[in-house]
Amino acid sequence: MKYILINIFFICLNISFAQQQDSLFIKKLYQTSLTQGHSYENLRELCKNIGARLSGSSEAEMAILWSKLKMENYHFDTVYLQEIKVPHWERGTKETAWWQTDKQKNPQKLHILALGGSIASDGLLSGEIVVFNHLDELKKADQSKVKNKIVLLNQAMDPTFINTFSSYGACAGIRFSGAMEAAKLGAKGILIRSLGLPQDQHPHTGMMAYNDSIQKIPAAALSTEDCNRLATLASKEKVTVHFELDCKTLPDITSYNVIAEIRGKKAKEIITFGGHLDSWDAGEGAHDDGAGVIHCLEALRLLKSMNYQPQHTLRVVFFMNEENGNMGGKTYATWAKSRGEKHIAALESDRGGFAPRGFSCDGSASHIDWLKSIAPQFKAYELHDFEKGYGGVDINPLKKEFPEIALFGFVPDSQRYFDLHHTEMDVFETVNKRELELGCAAIASFVYLIDRNF
Amino acid sequence: MKYILINIFFICLNISFAQQQDSLFIKKLYQTSLTQGHSYENLRELCKNIGARLSGSSEAEMAILWSKLKMENYHFDTVYLQEIKVPHWERGTKETAWWQTDKQKNPQKLHILALGGSIASDGLLSGEIVVFNHLDELKKADQSKVKNKIVLLNQAMDPTFINTFSSYGACAGIRFSGAMEAAKLGAKGILIRSLGLPQDQHPHTGMMAYNDSIQKIPAAALSTEDCNRLATLASKEKVTVHFELDCKTLPDITSYNVIAEIRGKKAKEIITFGGHLDSWDAGEGAHDDGAGVIHCLEALRLLKSMNYQPQHTLRVVFFMNEENGNMGGKTYATWAKSRGEKHIAALESDRGGFAPRGFSCDGSASHIDWLKSIAPQFKAYELHDFEKGYGGVDINPLKKEFPEIALFGFVPDSQRYFDLHHTEMDVFETVNKRELELGCAAIASFVYLIDRNF
Repeated sequence: MKYILINIFFICLNISFAQQQDSLFIKKLYQTSLTQGHSYENLRELCKNIGARLSGSSEAEMAILWSKLKMENYHFDTVYLQEIKVPHWERGTKETAWWQTDKQKNPQKLHILALGGSIASDGLLSGEIVVFNHLDELKKADQSKVKNKIVLLNQAMDPTFINTFSSYGACAGIRFSGAMEAAKLGAKGILIRSLGLPQDQHPHTGMMAYNDSIQKIPAAALSTEDCNRLATLASKEKVTVHFELDCKTLPDITSYNVIAEIRGKKAKEIITFGGHLDSWDAGEGAHDDGAGVIHCLEALRLLKSMNYQPQHTLRVVFFMNEENGNMGGKTYATWAKSRGEKHIAALESDRGGFAPRGFSCDGSASHIDWLKSIAPQFKAYELHDFEKGYGGVDINPLKKEFPEIALFGFVPDSQRYFDLHHTEMDVFETVNKRELELGCAAIASFVYLIDRNF
Repeated sequence: MKYILINIFFICLNISFAQQQDSLFIKKLYQTSLTQGHSYENLRELCKNIGARLSGSSEAEMAILWSKLKMENYHFDTVYLQEIKVPHWERGTKETAWWQTDKQKNPQKLHILALGGSIASDGLLSGEIVVFNHLDELKKADQSKVKNKIVLLNQAMDPTFINTFSSYGACAGIRFSGAMEAAKLGAKGILIRSLGLPQDQHPHTGMMAYNDSIQKIPAAALSTEDCNRLATLASKEKVTVHFELDCKTLPDITSYNVIAEIRGKKAKEIITFGGHLDSWDAGEGAHDDGAGVIHCLEALRLLKSMNYQPQHTLRVVFFMNEENGNMGGKTYATWAKSRGEKHIAALESDRGGFAPRGFSCDGSASHIDWLKSIAPQFKAYELHDFEKGYGGVDINPLKKEFPEIALFGFVPDSQRYFDLHHTEMDVFETVNKRELELGCAAIASFVYLIDRNF
């Protein structure tokens, strides 16, 4: 009995010592990020020297080269490109829209952005608009009401969700399937209400889908203010909309994920963390997802700067093509499987560079228990949100290949994200230096704890 | 025994029913704030139609009239002004500074703002600068090093505190007592490093103090970038600084706190909540503290919009003169005492209009226990921070008059506050609509819970 008690005493002492060691290490990570961080200047370079970087664009290519060089200059153990094939859609140069009524014959400008993947309009597309306030309304509509018209799908994101990703999730179907549903009923084009919470004149682009068995029609996002105005007008009189898009889909093209590693003692056991290097072609992809890739790059740099010798291989992946195909994430997962690696955990940062609130876990009950168990380590850093939840689009395919893997999502504050998401407003200036640095430190600390505990 | 168990059962049922009722009420407050809120447009009016409103200024007077009219239009039970005397300091129209060295003879502009309460420079003040990196260094300095020079007190806010109010608190002494310490050693003027975290060219003003037994010297805040440059230069060569201020202190002037009430069943038992209507004269006082007064006005409006009949009198106070004298807060406390009122709790919002994180409590152990007990009601709204802490400058004098009172502080995210605080950057555009609305709902919910539980 005495020996058992002595053993328990020493085990407790060890745990407490380990926690204290972790706590000091995490403190140092935060201090380094906040006083000698590279994240803000790296994000500035990516946003200002390169800018928007849609898959297949020359800017995406530049971003790949920039990332690889940056990683090499940090002297990680390994830096390499992983070849992938990505879709290649281009917005083109014509993208205009306006409206007219019998009373208002002068054309009035509308603020649009073609949806990613949309076909061109083949010259000017003109038609009466028909307004639906919900995707379900459109689905149930009578063909006679829609045929040969331009659908305005004016479903608004619900502002009463506290986390704005929930509002987005509940509404994103209008962008994804609006064109298919409208085309089924004979519409000749569709404008969807931008997936953004503010009432303003900034359209939000994003991915849409076609179905080969349904007519393809041009599709664009309209600013929320324009939507409000058109919907009000159309409730009183006939409104004609004209729009032109000359976007096009080119053949798939070669591109790359960019990868950097610090090898662990168990070199074939991998912790992947990353974001996506591609962005939409409006703005600079600062929050989506410049912040995410910079978070992870900086996290690896911070760990290296403290001479941390990991148990597992720490691998940062800058995924390509999250926005319109997820070929980076899909290719990475099958490649990882084919290499016979063991993937124990992956983390993604793809919710912006805002003040950290916590981490979510898409994994087993014991993974979620572990997540909750580390919450106290983060209380002093004002992270409180440690719950079951989504990991991320890029890391999601790993689940199929490695059913035992724990996927984690970095959770920053969500309130401002859908002011900017997929718009020309998503620029470097909207990222706050401290908020970004705190995110880097949180992710470095989290990866450290995975490495120590898994 | 059976009866006791039945009683316990019904008590539990009641508690659970009450919690459910609270939970539904809070949900409705949030929904109303987020979908039919007035806060953002009210803040826009205050910032854009009036702007900065330093005590004693005509803008402060306009803000008082605007606030009273706004409250009257909401048809609260009572709206009135409470007369107070406030200091009246004016910045004047001359506020320039530049530096020169033997090598750089062309005058180079510096970015300064006179500190609140500073005397004028009586024409151009010129002198060699002597740099101190900490207030303690200045205190210990030899008189010969300082005499007839201009002190540059270059103590930086420590970025490694996670909550930026801690960084501010640890450094604010340089602004408050820098001039007194420098004057003791014979300095003829002082420039202090701005109390802001970013490296930029925006000086941060704020209150300073003199002591009648020590020579008064002119004092201004210098931008952090200018501080860095001057400190580097001065470590290598002699740097001369010239500056001119024509600010002045005028006789005290009559002003007002603006008050609105919904009478409770126990009319003489008061819950006070408010912010301060005055602001510094740079920027528009959007976060400091336009957001705070609007938070509380909107909270009262939200409660009224739901026909809430409070137990206690709910009193919103727009305090005047928090920034340079706190005469609003001091006068309010003694006036409240003299009226024989019972003050059970007070809440202040004076930390900006950022995303809510929680509430702090300056009160007894049982008050803090109560605060922690309500935390679960706020979890779904992403508030997690329910800890012992400061209430606020305006409500603080209530503690002396009502030793039993519980003081609470609204705690929003602190990361961006000291980018803007007391600068020309503190403008309406930096306040996010949702973040502001969430703050209003959080405060309305909190006041509701105090009213129900106290």
